[in-house]
Amino acid sequence: MNFCQRLKVFTVAGIIGITILLPINFLGNQLSYDFSDLPNKSLDSFSISNVDDGSNRLWIHFCAAYVFTGVVCYFLYQEYSYISSKRVSYFYSSKPQPHQFTLLVRGIPGSSRSSFSEVVESFFKDYHPSTYLSHTVIRRTSKIQELTKDAEKLHRRLARLNSNDNSHKRFRRDGFLGIFGRKVDLLDHYGKRLEALQDNVRMEQSSLAGKEVAAAFVSFNSRYGAAIALHIQQGVNPTEWVTEQAPAPQDVHWPFFSSSFMKRWICKLAVVVACIALTILFLIPVVIVQGLTHLDQLETWFPFLKGVLNLTFISQVITGYLPSLILQLFLSFVPPIMIMFSSIQGHISLSNIEKSACSKVWWFTVWNNFFANALSGTALYHVQVFLEPKKIPQVLAEGVPAQASFFIAYVVTSGWTSISSELFRMFPLICSFISRLCCHNASDDLEVPSIPYHSEIPRVIFSVLLGITYFFLAPLILPFLLVYYCLGYIIYRNQLLNVYAPKFETGGKFWPIVHNSTIFSLLLMHVIAIGIFGLKKLPLASSLVIPLPVLTLLFNEYCRKRFLPIFEAYPTECLVKKDREDQNDATMAEFYEKLVTAYQDPALMPVQYSGSSDGRTSPLLHAANV
Amino acid sequence: MNFCQRLKVFTVAGIIGITILLPINFLGNQLSYDFSDLPNKSLDSFSISNVDDGSNRLWIHFCAAYVFTGVVCYFLYQEYSYISSKRVSYFYSSKPQPHQFTLLVRGIPGSSRSSFSEVVESFFKDYHPSTYLSHTVIRRTSKIQELTKDAEKLHRRLARLNSNDNSHKRFRRDGFLGIFGRKVDLLDHYGKRLEALQDNVRMEQSSLAGKEVAAAFVSFNSRYGAAIALHIQQGVNPTEWVTEQAPAPQDVHWPFFSSSFMKRWICKLAVVVACIALTILFLIPVVIVQGLTHLDQLETWFPFLKGVLNLTFISQVITGYLPSLILQLFLSFVPPIMIMFSSIQGHISLSNIEKSACSKVWWFTVWNNFFANALSGTALYHVQVFLEPKKIPQVLAEGVPAQASFFIAYVVTSGWTSISSELFRMFPLICSFISRLCCHNASDDLEVPSIPYHSEIPRVIFSVLLGITYFFLAPLILPFLLVYYCLGYIIYRNQLLNVYAPKFETGGKFWPIVHNSTIFSLLLMHVIAIGIFGLKKLPLASSLVIPLPVLTLLFNEYCRKRFLPIFEAYPTECLVKKDREDQNDATMAEFYEKLVTAYQDPALMPVQYSGSSDGRTSPLLHAANV
Repeated sequence: MNFCQRLKVFTVAGIIGITILLPINFLGNQLSYDFSDLPNKSLDSFSISNVDDGSNRLWIHFCAAYVFTGVVCYFLYQEYSYISSKRVSYFYSSKPQPHQFTLLVRGIPGSSRSSFSEVVESFFKDYHPSTYLSHTVIRRTSKIQELTKDAEKLHRRLARLNSNDNSHKRFRRDGFLGIFGRKVDLLDHYGKRLEALQDNVRMEQSSLAGKEVAAAFVSFNSRYGAAIALHIQQGVNPTEWVTEQAPAPQDVHWPFFSSSFMKRWICKLAVVVACIALTILFLIPVVIVQGLTHLDQLETWFPFLKGVLNLTFISQVITGYLPSLILQLFLSFVPPIMIMFSSIQGHISLSNIEKSACSKVWWFTVWNNFFANALSGTALYHVQVFLEPKKIPQVLAEGVPAQASFFIAYVVTSGWTSISSELFRMFPLICSFISRLCCHNASDDLEVPSIPYHSEIPRVIFSVLLGITYFFLAPLILPFLLVYYCLGYIIYRNQLLNVYAPKFETGGKFWPIVHNSTIFSLLLMHVIAIGIFGLKKLPLASSLVIPLPVLTLLFNEYCRKRFLPIFEAYPTECLVKKDREDQNDATMAEFYEKLVTAYQDPALMPVQYSGSSDGRTSPLLHAANV
Repeated sequence: MNFCQRLKVFTVAGIIGITILLPINFLGNQLSYDFSDLPNKSLDSFSISNVDDGSNRLWIHFCAAYVFTGVVCYFLYQEYSYISSKRVSYFYSSKPQPHQFTLLVRGIPGSSRSSFSEVVESFFKDYHPSTYLSHTVIRRTSKIQELTKDAEKLHRRLARLNSNDNSHKRFRRDGFLGIFGRKVDLLDHYGKRLEALQDNVRMEQSSLAGKEVAAAFVSFNSRYGAAIALHIQQGVNPTEWVTEQAPAPQDVHWPFFSSSFMKRWICKLAVVVACIALTILFLIPVVIVQGLTHLDQLETWFPFLKGVLNLTFISQVITGYLPSLILQLFLSFVPPIMIMFSSIQGHISLSNIEKSACSKVWWFTVWNNFFANALSGTALYHVQVFLEPKKIPQVLAEGVPAQASFFIAYVVTSGWTSISSELFRMFPLICSFISRLCCHNASDDLEVPSIPYHSEIPRVIFSVLLGITYFFLAPLILPFLLVYYCLGYIIYRNQLLNVYAPKFETGGKFWPIVHNSTIFSLLLMHVIAIGIFGLKKLPLASSLVIPLPVLTLLFNEYCRKRFLPIFEAYPTECLVKKDREDQNDATMAEFYEKLVTAYQDPALMPVQYSGSSDGRTSPLLHAANV
């Protein structure tokens, strides 16, 4: 719902932006342009590029910049305030949940005499005697996880073989691709392999006792007790006993679990460097690959295509469409790469990984979609421009307005189509179809998909960026964006309510990213305004715009102070009230019992390998012995 | 002692720097220079400026930059670690002090039905029932403070008149400057005025009940209880119930007490702007005033000086010394101005005000002493240089080495003399002498002075900056600095132990400022190195220096994470241990009793006006009725 909420505000902001500002711009431009060549007017005719140098009509654009910034900031404030109040009421209405009572403690100091488990217990019993409840030390289980995964796959195959009694499917040759070799009874074969795996898993599990990691989930008997341990530095050495709010049990990302402070810090730095390098240098390989699709090159490589390529239609498609298809293909790899980066970075929950990937993808989009298109030249040239801050407004003012029609087309082609295709979910459909065709052992059970916030949010707020930067340069982009937002509102609302199932509760935590990127868009617009008024020989307007980014930054700073803390942790008032409510609740004893085992690694569960699908809740042994 | 400690480490670092690096530089330079012109060598002969372009000998300077950075970082780490351990042991050995148990709460939400005092009590009794002890709401007492000050002055005069029985001093004419008018009995006159003032104060005190400010000192019955309320956001609105560690009662800065979040925020922003403006534009009025001291202008203004000014000696003194004297005079106003800025900024303790002023003065010194001298051109030109980051290394590399002999002279003249004059405290002596001569009613009681950290620390670390930036450009500056540090160590040690009495306990909190400024000096050195190797046609060395600032910044970041938290607040481990120690202490009941009244505004004390000097502890009425 938060996502819808966000879209709603942008839709409203868009409508108001258009209703207020389009007439102003239109009038300003209309009154000034020669009416005689009206029929010849292109889309660009409303653009600021057509206003004469030093013309007084530029002041209309100047006023529009101020008014628009004010309107956007007002909406941002309202929305931040609304979402933060929602967040508080969401907390008040929530049932007791394990992650509210639990912290992740990393950097447990080692001791030669006792295990990590004993160290944790003695520390928290000593310093939090009245609130400490239990703890679960984390173990390194990557090997078991792999084994379990294999076992699960086998188990599913077995179950399938059992359910459909086609005997021709039961037997298969054991050689290359199941074509050569002697025939084997698959049921028997899989059963044996599963048993072997099972023994392996048990052996690994029993040998794990010593493989403790210097990290643990520590549970407390009240939310306030957990908050106290969370907010106050525990040990004298700040790199030991580092506490962090635990994610919900199903949200924990088990594979990457580096516990040492130094290791995590180095990983984080490496990821930042990798991320910046990927963002800046991404276009280089893409441009090289795109170069290969030029007609003459294709002709030399594939001489038999000569006849076909000479057809005008086909050559138009290839030169016009293939490069952008290649770009799209490369772009589709970016969100998964960013997710990988974020998981290496040391986040321990899927939600945090997605949140972190979301901002990474956003910066990637800004750099590679906006700057790469708006500015000509190589990626390294762009970097050089940003090393000379004085030149930035001028360079942007020269490059950005010229691309207005390109970005209008971008909104229509990329924006409208991507949102409409979201409705049909063509890509997952094709993927699933292909995987069913190719792999005869694909899984039957359809999982309900979750919305990929990290790729959807940057796409939506990139349109906001376009709207904000272009509205005063070429206001004709606004109606197209309005259609985009209306479509988006309807489609995403439908998808969120009827199609997707949330993998985790965001709790509105994505809003600050949207807020920050909108502020960034405003600042970008101001920088372009400074540059363009300079180019248009109106230095007074250019310098009068300067207070605008300063005020916007101050506004952002105020919002950070006023609302952001609520998005990071809940205050005493909420926590104590909620804890008091629980005291009268009879079900709490049961909850505490569950809490003790809530954060056990799924890889260490003794009998069943996975509890997510109902078919697999029965013990594995039973299934294998059919 | 911490201050001495700091000086000690710099002295040691200086010695090691010289013993290791001077021979390297010396050898490197010696081997390369022509020995024939040895007698003609100036101070500059060891400087990097004399090395040929592209010479391999530049690699010696390059190595020196790496080795020196390593050595400095090693010492910084050791020192940070030492001081933070000292801080913890200082806490363990401290007696229960009111500020350890007390928080300052600002932004208390108003209520129409109840007073702030009731709101505070109900809030903390509700949410901190087991730890809340008492509170003192702050009142606006600036008027009473003025009245009290007047009354105190009068009281002191009366006491003096009573003590020395010279009857000629008892009578004075009541007209202009005590020369005209009728004779009055001062004892009688002052007694009456004091009584009137007293009544006034009482009236104001009684009417103050309604003048509550939305801020209060809230005391808890344990250090840990106070820490809990300090670290966790209290109210749902983060701009309300803002908590902050209370300063020691004698350290509270009562006059500026803005309680609203917005007001403080705006004040802070205004101060930042004012501070930057002062720093950047300071030299403009100074240069104008200095221009007035040119000989020809003096001659036109004061024609009678013509004869004197024609004497070579006098003209030399005036042209050589007067401009620098004027600069010094202007510079001496800076620390008090920065103190004023910091107090407007909303700090509530003298120690925080001094700490904040210390870093302000440091940046001021860097800008106006280092950059203004090292770079030619106006202040605004400098600002422009820093807006083009790509040019900075080149500009610095051109400007800085040329000023080596100037800064060597600066260390000798300004450094050595200021430290030596510190021993004699000439300036306070002259001030006190003049005030005794001019004002016949100057106070007799000498207060023990406290060391002005905010003006002394920046001066010492400015020498560190000079040492770090010049050691590889012109290593001959190092022996002069070594003498400076040795002198400084001896003299400051003496002054701190025998002359000054601390106004507040710093608890080592100034160390992070010293650490940060040293890191800044290292970075500046690296930037100059990058520039100079570029100028000397050794681009490989220039690019090989680039990892150095990156590594230094990473080192700094690590230190921030590893040590800074200890300088901001104490961890659970320390607090709980200390609280447990107190539980067995019999004197705690008495301490709690005192704690309840510890944070009463001195202006609201009913009978005695001031308790700081023993002569004034007797009730004022008694003194006035003599």
